[in-house]
Order: sequence, then structure tokens, then C-alpha cells
Amino acid sequence: MEQRQSTAKPIRCRAAVSKAPGQPLEMEEVEVAPPRAHEVRVKIICTSLCHTDITFSRMKDFPAMYPSILGHEAVGVVESVGEHVEEVAVGDTVVPVFLPQCGECADCLSARSNICSALTYRPGLMPRDGTTRFSLAATGEPVHSFLSVSSFAEYTVVDVANVVKLGAALPPEMACLLSCGVSTGVGAAWKVAAVEPGSTVAVFGLGTVGLAVAQGSKMHGATRIIGVDLNPDKFKIGQRLGVTDFVNPNDTGEKTVSEVIKEMTGGGADHCFECIGIPSVMAEAFQSSRTGWGKTIILGSDAAAAPVSISSSGIKRGRSVTGALLGGIKPKDDIPVLAQKYMDKELELDEFVTHRMGFDDINIAFDLLAQGKCLRCIIWMDGANKTTA
Amino acid sequence: MEQRQSTAKPIRCRAAVSKAPGQPLEMEEVEVAPPRAHEVRVKIICTSLCHTDITFSRMKDFPAMYPSILGHEAVGVVESVGEHVEEVAVGDTVVPVFLPQCGECADCLSARSNICSALTYRPGLMPRDGTTRFSLAATGEPVHSFLSVSSFAEYTVVDVANVVKLGAALPPEMACLLSCGVSTGVGAAWKVAAVEPGSTVAVFGLGTVGLAVAQGSKMHGATRIIGVDLNPDKFKIGQRLGVTDFVNPNDTGEKTVSEVIKEMTGGGADHCFECIGIPSVMAEAFQSSRTGWGKTIILGSDAAAAPVSISSSGIKRGRSVTGALLGGIKPKDDIPVLAQKYMDKELELDEFVTHRMGFDDINIAFDLLAQGKCLRCIIWMDGANKTTA
Repeated sequence: MEQRQSTAKPIRCRAAVSKAPGQPLEMEEVEVAPPRAHEVRVKIICTSLCHTDITFSRMKDFPAMYPSILGHEAVGVVESVGEHVEEVAVGDTVVPVFLPQCGECADCLSARSNICSALTYRPGLMPRDGTTRFSLAATGEPVHSFLSVSSFAEYTVVDVANVVKLGAALPPEMACLLSCGVSTGVGAAWKVAAVEPGSTVAVFGLGTVGLAVAQGSKMHGATRIIGVDLNPDKFKIGQRLGVTDFVNPNDTGEKTVSEVIKEMTGGGADHCFECIGIPSVMAEAFQSSRTGWGKTIILGSDAAAAPVSISSSGIKRGRSVTGALLGGIKPKDDIPVLAQKYMDKELELDEFVTHRMGFDDINIAFDLLAQGKCLRCIIWMDGANKTTA
Repeated sequence: MEQRQSTAKPIRCRAAVSKAPGQPLEMEEVEVAPPRAHEVRVKIICTSLCHTDITFSRMKDFPAMYPSILGHEAVGVVESVGEHVEEVAVGDTVVPVFLPQCGECADCLSARSNICSALTYRPGLMPRDGTTRFSLAATGEPVHSFLSVSSFAEYTVVDVANVVKLGAALPPEMACLLSCGVSTGVGAAWKVAAVEPGSTVAVFGLGTVGLAVAQGSKMHGATRIIGVDLNPDKFKIGQRLGVTDFVNPNDTGEKTVSEVIKEMTGGGADHCFECIGIPSVMAEAFQSSRTGWGKTIILGSDAAAAPVSISSSGIKRGRSVTGALLGGIKPKDDIPVLAQKYMDKELELDEFVTHRMGFDDINIAFDLLAQGKCLRCIIWMDGANKTTA
């Protein structure tokens, strides 16, 4: 076997480093150590921003850590591999994914779970040995990793359990989308809710995840897809991705959103997705679900980890509440399926890319996302693509 | 067609009447009106007590109503039928069930729901016309119905949607058990959790419902069934019904029950059933469920309707919370299946009958159940069976 790993040397490259809560990222020269056993070093082609990046960039306390390299939606090419890596080789196109799939634990072997129980996430560190591959070139100070990915760098090191190999035919921007947000939404409709033909769906929050839920629900035959958002601009893009009806909580008068949805659907939606991360919206989504079989699926992350409050008498009338990371999909098994669905034109992805820019403009992308002005802003590391913001 | 309904006359008989919150039932002569359209009048053979009867007998406000005739677990024989009743005839053995099954609404036609959406429960009244068939013989004062059943009377009138016809071969005591509590527990393991062979189960509260969950889980192949109860006396009977391990929350030292269950199961149980109705126990059941695919099933009723509090980050790791009335079973379809399983010796029911008594001793049965000293006390209306309390 070719011992590629023995030849790998530290690489110096640029990274956008998060140095303090709420501060813009700073472009720095970093050193990226060679991949250790079961790791791969990836040259990032493009990356995009997800709300979780914003949440962590503002967070003062653990699990936020400083300095760190954020970013967890990306696509890249394998530059070198560590020992015991057989699954991918130098030159392969891969998407790094925050959720590992070791393939051998009870969870990975079960069709019911996508929460690998062998590799536990270690905030700021590599999952297997609890160290980091990043340091500031100038001072040697270690820089923390983020969500096992850290894609806001020209090169990153990722555990082989956290990469999915994709064919080179898929356009890089589409691969990038599939590494987190879009897979989360489409997967939730597909794997968690198992949306059936003819069903009604309510989506709370029409960001990328919510619109991907709409697209996934449409793909699975839902006939009524109600989008709930405070921003009326979301309806136009929503319509293109499958949303059939729009409810703006500012416009429901004396009625609650759940009352309006119950009226629209004759008793409540079959599937209600919370894609924001606000406990009161989670409760409202539950209230909007149909007695008998209504499902509420929690996808949003509440940074404060406040509990969801659910009526025990309401849930006893045949409803359920469930949640998922990455929309319940198993990264290595299911992301290639979604990629193929895009190639077969069954899954619409192009609409999710609303902006493009070079790496140097990454803080502009943060502002756009925080202001709700973009879905996905693709950041090309080579800067060759013109900034469209 | 024989017009049996035209010949039915009011019947005077004895009933145990609930006259004020927290007071013993009073034996009264009542008049039971003939069944109206879609109704049947049933001569009760035997009835038993469920905690919901106790809850309502103590409740001061709506939906409790006074005077009323409680009782909703029973078996009887059809005495007369109203117009448009084709499904059962005079002389049929039936169990009345609080949950209707009209057979024609979207819910009854779907395999996913057991919450009939055509007949809505009206507290204290008959579901179709909102009146009552009971009055006090002495004064003519109307007496409210309870849960569409009111089985603490020698005769009752029930909507045909609320009766299940059973073969006469099933012993009456066993039929009585299947009309609520036992079906709720067994059904929850069968229909709601869909317990798989080899799975681990945690049952919070080892009353009749909880022990029926254990029995249903055993019947479906669960290999580890952990019973949680403050009363160590429950373990002996629990073992006979399938419980393999016992956790007493008083004996877990500095650990929480969920920490103990996680240790016992290597991460949490596959299925956690709350069979008490206490929100903090519901939350503990959820904490005891396994990441990846753990299900929490809420069966207990919280009289105060306090909300269940669930960690939004916890539920996103592939867990779910669901609930059910009557264990998710469709009465007319599934109770006959459970009856056959008893006849085939696949389902153990005899152990649930811990006491028997005559109708006059019904208040003794209330005390026994309230003190946790019985599972099911069967009350024989004819008084022929000796009181065993």
C-alpha cells in the first residue's frame, strides 16, 4: 500500500479566525498539521455559512472556544490521508460533515439512528485524540476546531468518519449545500417525518433548512405546504421551492398561528417542522399538528437549550414530537442519494444559492445571513468567482 | 327487521352515584331511559375501577360534574338497542369503551389514528345528542354520564360506536380488563412503541397500565423490562408479568433514576413508558431513553394538565416523545385481537385481578385502588361473588 501519509508535511495557508465573541473573523496565516491516523486533510473548494456558525461566533462560553476556525458546510478535495484511511484517496471530492458515521457502532449499524455512538463530538477538538491540527503561523498558538469540520480555512483536517465521498460530476456549490443545511431539511421530510403523498406540512421558519423541508416535502408528494415566517420576502423564493401557502405571524390578528393553520387544514397539519430554534415556536408547531397522527419535528437549535413545553393531554391524542440532527440522514449513505436526486432533477438545489463571494469577503456573508438577506452564500476559496452580494 | 328498540321502556335499577367531590359513592335507584338512535342499553355483568375514576371523583371543577355515574371498565350484555343499530343485537356480550370508533371518519379509516374525529366526547353527556339517559328515580333529577360509559350502574346506555362485541367464551373478568387499563398498556407496547424482539423497556409506574406495558413488551420479545415504582411490593407481581429489573427511586442514592437506567442499559432504554401522569416523571422517562432512537410514550394523565418539559437539544439526538389514549388501539379492531391472544395463552391477564367484590362494596374498591393495594378489583353487579378484599 502506498504510504501517502508519511510524506505529508504541515501546510501554511489562510484561515478566517474567530478570536472573540461577536467580533468579525480575522484573516490569518495558520499552520495545518498533517492528518493523523483515520484523518484526511482536505483542500476546501468552497464553503458556506449556516446559522450555527453565527450562533457560535457570538457565544461567550463553552462550547464556544477562542481562537477557533468556524465553518461546517463545504466541499473539497482530499490533499493527503493519515494511516488506516482506506475509504478515500488523494484527489477524491468529499464533503466534510459535522456528524460522523463510523459504520461499525450499534447506531451506525441500525437503520433507526444517525447518531454515531463510537465517535463522540469533542468541542473544539478532533474527535479521536482530542487535539487540534491548527495553529497560528506567527505565534504557534493552537487554534480550535469547530464541529469536527472547520471549513473557513483553505485547508482543514477532518476525521475520515466525517467525510462523504461524492462523484466529481456534482457542481461544487451543490455539494457544499448538501453538507449540512439542505440535507437537514430534505432529510427531515424524507427520513424523520416520512412525508406521504397528499399530506399537509407546516414549516416554521423559511431559512435554508425550512425551505429544504418544503422542497423535500414536495419531492415526497405533500400537496399543501404552509410556510410560516415574519419576512414576507420569503414567500417568493418559498413558492419556487414548494411552499403553497404563507402565514405571517404578524398578520394573524387575534388568532394564533396554530389556530390559523388548524382552520386552513381542517384540524391541523400532518407534519409540523420547527426550523428556527425558539421554544415558543416549537410549542406552536406542536399545537398546529393534527390530532390522531400529527408529528412535530424539531430541527432548530436553541442556543440557551431552553426546554420545549408540550401539553401532556395534547400529546396523548396521538401526536408525537421528535427531533433530528442532519435531518436524520446517515451522511455516507444518504448524501450521495440526495446528490443523485439533484442530478436526476428530482431535487431542486440551485435556488438555495443566493450569493457568491471570495474568501476575503466572508464577514459580508455573516452580515447577510444574520440579517436574513440570503439563503446560502457560497464562499469560493480561490476568490475567482465574483462577489455578488 | 325486528324493531326491538320500539319496545324498550325505562328501567329502574341501582347505581353508585358520585354526588360531591371526594365523597363516597351513594347507592341510589336511578331510571335509565331507553336507548335512542345509534345507542344500546347494556346490562352490566361486572365493572372495575381505574385511576381516572378516582381522579374524577375528587375533582371539583369541570369536566367533573355532579351528580354523575362514574365507571368505564366493564363488560355486559346488550339489553335493548335503539334505531339504526345493526352492529350488535340483544343478548350480545359487549365491552363499553370510552374511546369511540365510528368506522367512517378520516381517523377511523386510517391505520395511523385511534382518535375518532366524528364523535367528539362531551363531558357528562351522550356524544351524539348531548343529553343523558340517567335520572334519580326519587326526584327525576338528571344524572350525568361519564366517559360515554358510566358502568357503576346495573344498566347503562352507550353509543354503538363505544361498544365492542366479544365472543361469550372470554371470561367476563378478562373482558372487563380489556375495556381500558390492560388494553392501554398492552396496546402501547404493541401499537405505539412497536416494541421489537431484544429491545429494552423502562416502565414508570407499575399499576395496571404499567404492568400491562410490561406484559405487552414481553409478548413482543423485549428482553429487558425495567420497572420503576416507589412500592417494592410491585416487584413480585411485576416479575410474574414480565418485569426483569426493578428500580425504586427511593434507593438510587445520589443518582437520578435516568442515570441508573442509562447505566443498566448502556446508554438508555429503547422504549420508556410513563404510566403515572406526573410531568416530572415524564421528563425523567425521556431522560432515560436512548440517544439515536429512544422513544418515550406518555400514557399517564396529569389532572392539572401541566406541560411536559423536554430538552430541545436532547430530542434532536434522534429521540421522540409520543402519547396515546387507550394505547393507540382501535377498540373494535384490536380488543378482539387481544381477547384471542388471551384465549391462546399469549397474553397473561389473570394476574391483574387481585380482588373481587359485590356492587355494594364499591367504595372499598376505591380505597384499595387509592392506596395502591390492588391492581384491578372486579365488582360483580349480581353480588354473587364473595368480596375478597
